[in-house]
Amino acid sequence: MILNKKIVIIGSTGSVGRQALDVIRDNPNDFEVVGLSAHQNQELLNSQIEEFTPKFGGTCDLEEVRKMVNSKETDIVFIGCRGTDFLPALIDAIKAGKKIAMANKEMIVENGEEIMKLIHEYDTEFIPVDSEHSAIFQCMQGHDKDDIEKIILTCSGGACRDKTAEELENVTVEVALSHPTWNMGKKITIDSATLMNKALEIIEAKYLFGLNAEQIEVLIHPQSIVHSMVQFKDGNMITHFGYPDMRIPIAYALYYPDIKDNKLPRVDLVDKKLEFYKPNIKNFPSIDFAYKALHQGPSTIKKLNQANDIAVKKFVDGEILFNEIFQYIERETF
Amino acid sequence: MILNKKIVIIGSTGSVGRQALDVIRDNPNDFEVVGLSAHQNQELLNSQIEEFTPKFGGTCDLEEVRKMVNSKETDIVFIGCRGTDFLPALIDAIKAGKKIAMANKEMIVENGEEIMKLIHEYDTEFIPVDSEHSAIFQCMQGHDKDDIEKIILTCSGGACRDKTAEELENVTVEVALSHPTWNMGKKITIDSATLMNKALEIIEAKYLFGLNAEQIEVLIHPQSIVHSMVQFKDGNMITHFGYPDMRIPIAYALYYPDIKDNKLPRVDLVDKKLEFYKPNIKNFPSIDFAYKALHQGPSTIKKLNQANDIAVKKFVDGEILFNEIFQYIERETF
Repeated sequence: MILNKKIVIIGSTGSVGRQALDVIRDNPNDFEVVGLSAHQNQELLNSQIEEFTPKFGGTCDLEEVRKMVNSKETDIVFIGCRGTDFLPALIDAIKAGKKIAMANKEMIVENGEEIMKLIHEYDTEFIPVDSEHSAIFQCMQGHDKDDIEKIILTCSGGACRDKTAEELENVTVEVALSHPTWNMGKKITIDSATLMNKALEIIEAKYLFGLNAEQIEVLIHPQSIVHSMVQFKDGNMITHFGYPDMRIPIAYALYYPDIKDNKLPRVDLVDKKLEFYKPNIKNFPSIDFAYKALHQGPSTIKKLNQANDIAVKKFVDGEILFNEIFQYIERETF
Repeated sequence: MILNKKIVIIGSTGSVGRQALDVIRDNPNDFEVVGLSAHQNQELLNSQIEEFTPKFGGTCDLEEVRKMVNSKETDIVFIGCRGTDFLPALIDAIKAGKKIAMANKEMIVENGEEIMKLIHEYDTEFIPVDSEHSAIFQCMQGHDKDDIEKIILTCSGGACRDKTAEELENVTVEVALSHPTWNMGKKITIDSATLMNKALEIIEAKYLFGLNAEQIEVLIHPQSIVHSMVQFKDGNMITHFGYPDMRIPIAYALYYPDIKDNKLPRVDLVDKKLEFYKPNIKNFPSIDFAYKALHQGPSTIKKLNQANDIAVKKFVDGEILFNEIFQYIERETF
């Protein structure tokens, strides 16, 4: 099988964008990079342009990106950027019927209803890249959404999983950035430490899979092997295991609906223990923030996401303590 | 949804047959029992006939059973009997295009090639009921067999899991019958204790899913929550969790491709540990017997199954010790 698909990568210098290029580099016959977009690391973007020689070059300009996306030549649009600035490019991709590999959280969180409505209207292939949502997407293959009783999003627990309320006050940026299992970007690693990452994923899952908030649960699973689970209304659960390496869900999304063999690491379960706990909502109220925001509706959800963005910045800049992130978010959102 | 399907149960007084009738009893609008067959417990058969008033009554005669199966009225044939005596009735059901819920191991083990050839020829719906094979079947929904890298059959380890070689010599019938998680028939519980059950399941899986022996692994998983796993060639694993209650895979098979809600127990993962170990082949050589028999072909496989049947009988009758089951099987098979 040679796929021969032309791809645009939005956010090519971020963690997930770089890993998408790793997958493409390993499969030069299947993908041709026709456009790159990034704005935080011009030096890396230049070296990516040199390596992949995209026809449309590299840019951080939204209008230039929209041109790449809308080009007849483009088959796949990989959305690896953070934030909502490039939402118009996503909407273009949906309307143009491009296959979309979606690694951006904020657009779904803030504009989920609008995006999913368009996806259904244009019948667009829209494959989540985030490991939990990729897992749910995979578990639902061959199944009907209406047969779902609930889904369980697993959560590593982040760098501060085992800390007491007192210890949380003194968590430094360095500690919050030391994620136990995943190798990810800075913002998302802090979000993992606060469980705000999981809160945003609850909201994402609601939109992506058309579920009620009550159908979405979270379990702490420190080993990050079970990526998520779908329980059907007859009690059977289809679950997803994977080695915690983002290149695996990225490759899944790029090849979907095909499956391409690869040399990426495999799960080894021998002598392993997989553990599951309820999240500690008292120390990490983020999960509750998600449910509360979902019940209040889109404008509260937007406030929640934006308050978190600012709180993380304040924490990284040393303006607030780790546990003050929660206080800031709660005060600004509800 | 009212299914309104007419069903014949072959082996209605055995463990799995009784549990199929439990599911039917709970869903009287969906199923009508039109025929029952059993031969080991006439008293129970009589009370089942009184309760379900099947049109064709109850019988243990093969020709009578074949008439029930071939009747135009029959929609579903549930094969819950042990042994291969009723193979002609299974073949009738396949050729008549009935939906088949298959809980019999021996027919697949001894006649897998012939059965699967007919199933493909007649394009028959053939749904495994055995929890591991139901799990694999469920994990493969929406996926292509050719994308499978390997499957892992999980195994509780049976009643003698933690015993040393010395302790195995002294295992009594009572101990071998005390299965830690599943409530099953006598023969299959002894087979669980020797891991011969898993050996037969390896052979079943090879035929049911058209795999090579090398693609089938076994892991001991004492909690019996993960029922089996499918690893695809891109490293993603789709796995199945379920509460260890045979009524769940039975209901799945009866309703397939629909999913019907039920009040059967659900998996609760909170504060659970799921463990996985390699089987101890030295103490339990059964797994190796399966691979060896698969490499030697159908006549050895038949000998393996039949030698095990006799060995279990000898053990239950007090003629041989527990660990002599392995010696007997090896001597008679290879």
